[in-house]
Amino acid sequence: MRIALCQIDTTVGDFAGNTRRIVDYAQRAAQQGAELAVFPELAVCGYPPEDLLVRAAFLDAHDAALAALAASVPPELDVLVGCVTKNTEALQRGGRPLHNAVAYLRGGRIRIVARKTLLPTYDVFDESRYFEPCRAPEANFVDLRGHRVGIVVCEDGWNDELFFGQRAYAVDPVERVAQAGAELIVNLSASPWERGKEEFRYRMVAAAASRHRVPMLYVNMVGGDVGLQFDGGSLAVKSTGVACQPVWWAEQLVVVDTAAPWTETPQWPGLEAMQHAAIAQGIAAYVHKFGFHDVVIGLSGGIDSALVATLAVDALGKEHVVGIAMPSAHSSDHSLEDARQLAKSLGIEFHVLPIEPLQDAFAQVLRPVFAGTEPGTAEENLQSRARGTLLMAFANKHGHLVLTTGNKSECAVGYCTIYGDTNGALAPIADLWKTEVWALARWLNRDGERIPQRSIDKPPSAELRPGQLDADSLPPYAELDPVLRCLVEEELSVAATTARTGMASERVAALFAQVQDAEWKRSQYPPTVKLGKRCWNGRRMPVSHRYRER
Amino acid sequence: MRIALCQIDTTVGDFAGNTRRIVDYAQRAAQQGAELAVFPELAVCGYPPEDLLVRAAFLDAHDAALAALAASVPPELDVLVGCVTKNTEALQRGGRPLHNAVAYLRGGRIRIVARKTLLPTYDVFDESRYFEPCRAPEANFVDLRGHRVGIVVCEDGWNDELFFGQRAYAVDPVERVAQAGAELIVNLSASPWERGKEEFRYRMVAAAASRHRVPMLYVNMVGGDVGLQFDGGSLAVKSTGVACQPVWWAEQLVVVDTAAPWTETPQWPGLEAMQHAAIAQGIAAYVHKFGFHDVVIGLSGGIDSALVATLAVDALGKEHVVGIAMPSAHSSDHSLEDARQLAKSLGIEFHVLPIEPLQDAFAQVLRPVFAGTEPGTAEENLQSRARGTLLMAFANKHGHLVLTTGNKSECAVGYCTIYGDTNGALAPIADLWKTEVWALARWLNRDGERIPQRSIDKPPSAELRPGQLDADSLPPYAELDPVLRCLVEEELSVAATTARTGMASERVAALFAQVQDAEWKRSQYPPTVKLGKRCWNGRRMPVSHRYRER
Repeated sequence: MRIALCQIDTTVGDFAGNTRRIVDYAQRAAQQGAELAVFPELAVCGYPPEDLLVRAAFLDAHDAALAALAASVPPELDVLVGCVTKNTEALQRGGRPLHNAVAYLRGGRIRIVARKTLLPTYDVFDESRYFEPCRAPEANFVDLRGHRVGIVVCEDGWNDELFFGQRAYAVDPVERVAQAGAELIVNLSASPWERGKEEFRYRMVAAAASRHRVPMLYVNMVGGDVGLQFDGGSLAVKSTGVACQPVWWAEQLVVVDTAAPWTETPQWPGLEAMQHAAIAQGIAAYVHKFGFHDVVIGLSGGIDSALVATLAVDALGKEHVVGIAMPSAHSSDHSLEDARQLAKSLGIEFHVLPIEPLQDAFAQVLRPVFAGTEPGTAEENLQSRARGTLLMAFANKHGHLVLTTGNKSECAVGYCTIYGDTNGALAPIADLWKTEVWALARWLNRDGERIPQRSIDKPPSAELRPGQLDADSLPPYAELDPVLRCLVEEELSVAATTARTGMASERVAALFAQVQDAEWKRSQYPPTVKLGKRCWNGRRMPVSHRYRER
Repeated sequence: MRIALCQIDTTVGDFAGNTRRIVDYAQRAAQQGAELAVFPELAVCGYPPEDLLVRAAFLDAHDAALAALAASVPPELDVLVGCVTKNTEALQRGGRPLHNAVAYLRGGRIRIVARKTLLPTYDVFDESRYFEPCRAPEANFVDLRGHRVGIVVCEDGWNDELFFGQRAYAVDPVERVAQAGAELIVNLSASPWERGKEEFRYRMVAAAASRHRVPMLYVNMVGGDVGLQFDGGSLAVKSTGVACQPVWWAEQLVVVDTAAPWTETPQWPGLEAMQHAAIAQGIAAYVHKFGFHDVVIGLSGGIDSALVATLAVDALGKEHVVGIAMPSAHSSDHSLEDARQLAKSLGIEFHVLPIEPLQDAFAQVLRPVFAGTEPGTAEENLQSRARGTLLMAFANKHGHLVLTTGNKSECAVGYCTIYGDTNGALAPIADLWKTEVWALARWLNRDGERIPQRSIDKPPSAELRPGQLDADSLPPYAELDPVLRCLVEEELSVAATTARTGMASERVAALFAQVQDAEWKRSQYPPTVKLGKRCWNGRRMPVSHRYRER
């Protein structure tokens, strides 16, 4: 059978656009001789629709779009597309009102041929909030031109007890359709990228293909809306190899012949290439999908803002990025110089707005309530908030979006000023540890100095008081990041973190307390591009509580 | 049997404090002759622990606290207390790793005697993220001194098909334990308050008691941490009536005799009394549980800030509330006067910090990038951000928390400036519609003018440009609020909202688009005290998407 893997980019709620794209790909698939075209999970409404699923009008619009789609795809082509369907048993038997499902379109008709069984409800996923799991596993099949095709949806493919060493759910839907005689298994997915996931996903799908001796077709969405970035990387896998190289970070239509020998071995991009693409896609998706064109970034001369500006240029083009340096008396000589050099190197619009008049004015206005106090955190935060307010003023005046430049290390320990440097529509690197920030900057400079080397080399500093350095109050990042990874990404205890990293347990406990105390700042933080485990949006801690660890 | 309903206030993660409180209540219950003491859902760790449940160390601390508790309660007393327990089948059979459970403590031993069956995963609730439902319903019993007691946990009591007219889940755990011969049913709850819930809950519990002809004991927690406010209102109900009047918004220990006739009819506080208590508890809980003492509020002379200041005084005492007026050239004459009069009436510390020097300084600094533009939204937002920054500066300097003064109507349509008037640790009235704001203010003035009458009577205005009024761009709130209630609280379509309210559909569609466009501001909004349906924290819409309704 000739099957088209349609790796498309959908937008949440854009029924007209998503439908147009699916029809376009279906027509191209038919032209290329495909008998079946497979689209990603929830391709009709986009993923994740979240509480839009609570609105009956949204569901009606979805159903109308699906009906229009069925009437518009080529009649000679079979189509499998991810969609929402009502749980018709909910009223009688109880249960969530919807299913995350797969529609089979043929000759203008719509038939629901599969319902998702395993509903991820952890990290950034909340599917149990909306969907009832499939209770009729025998239904997850469709007979296509004499072939019995088993259908699973995303998480359904992630519960192979032999592969993972343990099961997360009671059933393995892939094993179930394989044992029920599937000659071919397709997985419709919306699987966001995180560090290493592209290769892990391949190993998992390949293991299933080998064990069940059945070709596996894995169709993932690409693109993203806010935060979650889908990398594509769709796969056609037999125990002998893949049919063709997976493509990441771009739409793709590839037609594979299930009767042909598949013998290729996938090639992997490096980590930095994937991080770069994920962040650039995240910036471009937010800006372009929601009617904006340009971004503005505060340039401190440091590495975080330099990296974000460079990524924004790669995402949007240099004519759509504005850098603003906002020096104060505490800024070191090289700060302004490095910011200027970065702007020149990137070729972006650049402004200098010194904040001393604002510091003076705030000091004057606050005199009645600050009299007799020593300068401290309040004055430091004022500088950051003056800058954040200038960026928002520029953005409001000229219709730009502000990009937040914080990294995951500083976000973790709360080295940021809420309503100051945290301001922004999107936080592109808030899921990159500081050591990863440096590595990515060096990678961007691999063919020449796009980011001033001095911004990479100099010791990190917030420059909110004379001579201030991050290292005054934090361990060096090379020591700090492994500790934070244990505490945040793996949720290890203070004791286990101490054992793993060798840092003194009092120090680890103090860092963990810092992480906890910053929760309220993170609860008001901009959406973050997910790049690793436990990104802030997927780590849902109480804003305030009294739990402590020693 | 003599049973103590122990309506206690727990704090998330405060194992030592929660344990101490449970022991204290257990001792008092024993002294008062109780044979059994019942505590709320998850009383050991507090509710909702959210992703703290992902940390193994947190679970270990929980188990240690439960063991200490079992060893410390009076040996002659039986105790039922809500706790977390491991799903021991998860490793073999799959499933979520924990159960939301009930421990039976007796003679120093711990026995898990019930597991929650229905796991709320909607609105502000995310229990399916952590817990596996009870799969062994026959286990939800304990035999106490010859009596067979059925045990359910919170949501388990909310699926009576006859009462609700439909079922939300496949099983009704109350019916199940009743049919299995329970002589008495206890419900351990952590049920947050919202408009009308106290009476609704009583009607639901009373309906079950009547239908199953069994006494129902409903023990709810009181207090709250951030956002969710638990009202208590524990009940002992038979078909003949309640054993005693429920108590709201305070801890309570009451011992009821199941053999006695229960014939009282509960009395209901009014809506405003409940709203007042919920908000005051929310402010006090945040401030007191997390090591703060004082709050600071920007006083505009308008009704929202006046209401928040009055509620803060009722929550914390007047010596713990600071009001700051921050007039500009656009402030009307009465604004400063009304703010001053409010501060005087409440007896709170009051400062005036005029923002004109800040407006001038921002204009000066921004001149290079604002040259040739007309004043507009950017300049209006600058005023709000200057004020928000002053409040944060005061708070940082003096260790206060900032309270945000926005109401639900303005939050819905985005009539607020992000990083400006939205700044704050807690938003006490962001779940009150503007028409409710006025009603609550009038109620607070029922025995004398605490809030200046002019603040209640004057037309609402943001005063960010000369002569600006909310009514210039919004319908009157008496027309707007019913429309927003349909769109937001009931998630009705534009068409259904038009039919229900009579507002022109173009106007409704434009308002709905405004609601959607403000999603990104709300995603960075402070935690909100829940007072009604679909509070912002429970309404999880995508930050950005392309869904529109006509």
